[in-house]
Amino acid sequence: MIDLSDATGTQLFELIGRLYPICRSITGEGVRQTLRILQELIPLEIREVPTGTRVFDWEVPKEWNIHDAFVKDSRGRKIINFANSNLQVVNYSVPFRGKLKLEELKSHLFTLPDHPDWIPYRTSYYNESWGFCLSHRQLLSLADDEYEICIDSTLEVGSLSYGELVIPGATNREILLTTHICHPSLCNDNLSGIALVTWLAKQLSLRPNRYTYRILLLPGTIGSIAWLALNEAKVPLIQHGFVVAGVGDRGSFTYKKSRRGNAEIDAVFDYLLKSTSGNSDIVEFSPYGYDERQFCSPGFNIPVGCVMRTPHGQYPEYHTSADNLEFLSMDSLADSIEKCASVLDILENNRIYLNRNPKCEPRLGKRGLYRTIGGNTDEKKNELAMLWVLNLSDGNHNLLDIAQRSGLLFSEIQLAAAALLQHDLLKAVGD
Amino acid sequence: MIDLSDATGTQLFELIGRLYPICRSITGEGVRQTLRILQELIPLEIREVPTGTRVFDWEVPKEWNIHDAFVKDSRGRKIINFANSNLQVVNYSVPFRGKLKLEELKSHLFTLPDHPDWIPYRTSYYNESWGFCLSHRQLLSLADDEYEICIDSTLEVGSLSYGELVIPGATNREILLTTHICHPSLCNDNLSGIALVTWLAKQLSLRPNRYTYRILLLPGTIGSIAWLALNEAKVPLIQHGFVVAGVGDRGSFTYKKSRRGNAEIDAVFDYLLKSTSGNSDIVEFSPYGYDERQFCSPGFNIPVGCVMRTPHGQYPEYHTSADNLEFLSMDSLADSIEKCASVLDILENNRIYLNRNPKCEPRLGKRGLYRTIGGNTDEKKNELAMLWVLNLSDGNHNLLDIAQRSGLLFSEIQLAAAALLQHDLLKAVGD
Amino acid sequence: MIDLSDATGTQLFELIGRLYPICRSITGEGVRQTLRILQELIPLEIREVPTGTRVFDWEVPKEWNIHDAFVKDSRGRKIINFANSNLQVVNYSVPFRGKLKLEELKSHLFTLPDHPDWIPYRTSYYNESWGFCLSHRQLLSLADDEYEICIDSTLEVGSLSYGELVIPGATNREILLTTHICHPSLCNDNLSGIALVTWLAKQLSLRPNRYTYRILLLPGTIGSIAWLALNEAKVPLIQHGFVVAGVGDRGSFTYKKSRRGNAEIDAVFDYLLKSTSGNSDIVEFSPYGYDERQFCSPGFNIPVGCVMRTPHGQYPEYHTSADNLEFLSMDSLADSIEKCASVLDILENNRIYLNRNPKCEPRLGKRGLYRTIGGNTDEKKNELAMLWVLNLSDGNHNLLDIAQRSGLLFSEIQLAAAALLQHDLLKAVGD
Repeated sequence: MIDLSDATGTQLFELIGRLYPICRSITGEGVRQTLRILQELIPLEIREVPTGTRVFDWEVPKEWNIHDAFVKDSRGRKIINFANSNLQVVNYSVPFRGKLKLEELKSHLFTLPDHPDWIPYRTSYYNESWGFCLSHRQLLSLADDEYEICIDSTLEVGSLSYGELVIPGATNREILLTTHICHPSLCNDNLSGIALVTWLAKQLSLRPNRYTYRILLLPGTIGSIAWLALNEAKVPLIQHGFVVAGVGDRGSFTYKKSRRGNAEIDAVFDYLLKSTSGNSDIVEFSPYGYDERQFCSPGFNIPVGCVMRTPHGQYPEYHTSADNLEFLSMDSLADSIEKCASVLDILENNRIYLNRNPKCEPRLGKRGLYRTIGGNTDEKKNELAMLWVLNLSDGNHNLLDIAQRSGLLFSEIQLAAAALLQHDLLKAVGD
Repeated sequence: MIDLSDATGTQLFELIGRLYPICRSITGEGVRQTLRILQELIPLEIREVPTGTRVFDWEVPKEWNIHDAFVKDSRGRKIINFANSNLQVVNYSVPFRGKLKLEELKSHLFTLPDHPDWIPYRTSYYNESWGFCLSHRQLLSLADDEYEICIDSTLEVGSLSYGELVIPGATNREILLTTHICHPSLCNDNLSGIALVTWLAKQLSLRPNRYTYRILLLPGTIGSIAWLALNEAKVPLIQHGFVVAGVGDRGSFTYKKSRRGNAEIDAVFDYLLKSTSGNSDIVEFSPYGYDERQFCSPGFNIPVGCVMRTPHGQYPEYHTSADNLEFLSMDSLADSIEKCASVLDILENNRIYLNRNPKCEPRLGKRGLYRTIGGNTDEKKNELAMLWVLNLSDGNHNLLDIAQRSGLLFSEIQLAAAALLQHDLLKAVGD
Repeated sequence: MIDLSDATGTQLFELIGRLYPICRSITGEGVRQTLRILQELIPLEIREVPTGTRVFDWEVPKEWNIHDAFVKDSRGRKIINFANSNLQVVNYSVPFRGKLKLEELKSHLFTLPDHPDWIPYRTSYYNESWGFCLSHRQLLSLADDEYEICIDSTLEVGSLSYGELVIPGATNREILLTTHICHPSLCNDNLSGIALVTWLAKQLSLRPNRYTYRILLLPGTIGSIAWLALNEAKVPLIQHGFVVAGVGDRGSFTYKKSRRGNAEIDAVFDYLLKSTSGNSDIVEFSPYGYDERQFCSPGFNIPVGCVMRTPHGQYPEYHTSADNLEFLSMDSLADSIEKCASVLDILENNRIYLNRNPKCEPRLGKRGLYRTIGGNTDEKKNELAMLWVLNLSDGNHNLLDIAQRSGLLFSEIQLAAAALLQHDLLKAVGD
């Protein structure tokens, strides 16, 4: 398992800590600040899409920024204060100043009666309004007073910002890794995803890869729609991908299949999770969730799944102030990273080969092939793995197919293929 | 559930009561009289196919009519009398008059030893002979006497009669509904089917339909063969259909699949029965049963299933005098009608749509679509249903496919599609 | 069940007894002698492929023959003697004469510590060396002596011998039956296979067949590779086939599927084993085992399965002196023969027919077809079988497909098809 107790782990943990207080939204300085911090770790490009840009059925909204916000009681005490937690202001609240009686104010206040100590996370992206979020306990304690309201925000022509990094590989065919970056002080959803993607991007950039990797850090929904609308020509290059959602809670790992359901990315996650000990779930695609909704819309149908631990909405802390630093488990995050990295390793190596001697078996013995592989591994299994690779390398089976039909591990099949390739008994198909 | 306690139900019940005493067969006045009664309810055409007409491997037989038949004992008492029950004469018995000793007579007498009070139903369509059916109890009581036999029937050049009704719809593509009309005083088999088909035909003719409906009331086997032989050019228009067998006994509903096994009609019945509470069965096609044998012969292979309750031969009253008015359950008949009507509703609405914005999701919010549907229904479910319809409306999925993949009800998916269509987010494929 | 208690059985038993002492190998006089004995029963051709012939990635090895071999102790006693059992010399041992101390000798001695009374069977085909096999008990008793070694063998340019018999049928399309003939004094592996193939070949040559049968008695691996390399043009004619491995042990019957997994040969064995009482197993293809490895290599992919009882390596007597005449069960061998013969019968009869009256059912009654079949068999079932054959004889279903979809026995379907064919209601597709 990946060990996050070392420098890398510390770095990730510090990263999450630095990002946590920032007030992110689907546009604005919070997103840019976040991307600039990530640039310290990976060479992201920060891209801007101007307000009003038409992106399919949508248009890029005005840019929202907020400087301060509070509710003061008649004695001048700030009883609700944006400076304490950015969750306290409804995200995308329009500027407002005024005095309101409690009754009038109440229609702008949002709480969680079932979790009276937690503050909910609310947004109002496409509906110009304002509001505050607070604990239900506080709401109940509010006196029948006149309150002074200040929301010092701006909603103006500007741009939508996102981060993009392309890590070139031996082929221009791409694997897409993406996560959303539009949530303010929430940890699992989705600083965990930002950390995971950043970690993978860093590792991928340190080694040669077969695939080109495209990393997209996008504001949810409008970000992926904008990217797809402005980059349609790049879509056909994307061979596999996954969206990263909340990957740091204590629940078990979950993979949600792509719309295709039988894409290579689906098969690889299926293989990995079934061959790995520990609980995990595979769920079918549904057009609800994260940006896989856009990547898997029928006009694109890109083989993009989604990784998470507990699915969104299925844990009480979801979209509340309780999704905080304590809610994150570094073990869960490490396990999520490990699984995603393993999947990329399999994809990198899941080649289709052609047996150069397809008629009858080649004579492995005269090439010393019964002994060239491994040291402590079982020779019989090596031989069997080589025979399987030779038998099924007819151009219709990738190594994962061979692993699954043979019942052997992908790693064993991969080792066998490497040995056969070295002895010129196989040749690779495609790039 | 459809309520047959109202005027319609009374009408159906009266209809069955009027039809019960008539001596029907595969040809003859009984069939014509039956069809004329049905004409009081629906505008059936009565068609005649002359004796001797070649229909594929068969030819239309001579027309059979019967006026009287009896067996008198030596004291002149009519101990078997056609006037009491038309089941007492073997259907298609040739004319006969004569005197026979009991021993000679016995080879012309048919009984049911296992049900000594019931009279069996026997036919002799393609084998010129005569006979009487009686209770086994009566047979045992017959004295060693000389009996006077009279069968006052005719078997002459004439025609085969059947009823046909075409109810035009928006498209000329057809749904075929058919049942057999050749049984004399038997109720479940098949006055129940005649009642069901008549009811459906009546309802369909009162409303606009997408499909054209073809209603065929046919003598079994030779009737469907004759119709197919004389109407081959119409066959390609038939998109779906079902044969109606015994649908009024107290057994649970049964759908027998078409020969294709995966036709839309099969999928719709499968969906309906699985999403409806109560017992029901789906059985695979076999080339034995009712006129689906002809419609599903390999040269036609029309997607025609068969609806029934207890399958033929699996209840003791089958083809006996015990299949009488008391054997019918109006609740069962109502349930059968309900299910068949529901299937037609689904077929009418099971369109394929194309998402007009296939790249990324359209913005439902700006169209107010999160609130336009329903009143008390669950908004989240509505939204999900719309997302499913949009995601799968790629030209390869009809609404039932979408219901089944999403796990939502067809009605929910249908409602979502209607809302999307109204907002120009979908367009229909085909007619 | 086939009765091997008669003359044929005695003949088979005598055959095995005569073949048992012969020292066979992948080349040499032992193989020729074996084939000449088989020629007394079936008109095999003995073919020779010269040493050095290139056959795909392999070449035909030098021919090995052995006249005598022993180990003498210092008192001149032959403590290991080839004349007692040909298993005592490592097959393909190069000539050697010399004196060795026990310590030096030991590296040339092979035993089975787990079965101290049994002598292992060892080969050294492609690695010029020599050795002796003995019981572990004897090894432990060997004195610390100087031993005289004699291996009077030759390894010289010669040829590889195999037997081939073609039994012409009505069509030139072939069924391949093959077994290996390279094992010295081992009974189940593979005198049982030689007996089974010889028996089948004999029976097939006594009757007219639809298929042409090709019988190949080959040295394992190099024999099938040589045949395939030198007969590539004949390969496309092979429609079905199976390799015969150990078929006489007391384990249950096992069929290993062809690489295709869904070939007709696989379907027939599947049907036969599932419709036969008694235990049997069907295992998936793997590229390990007998000559199916070569026939099913990706460049050929011939639909060839493998029949055996207990799979190789899964019984302790495998490749030891305990695989002797007592290890064979004539009941098992008879059962294996019976099953293989049944499979050939089904293949011979598993035709595709076309219904000549595909539109509606033909009128069976006027042809008397409800009574023409069988005497004691059930008329209803006959009628049903005929209806199934007519309904599915659309050119896409062979008789086995029809048996499986109908749930009737192949024999019932075959009988129905024969009756329909006789009445010109079917015509055969292909030859």
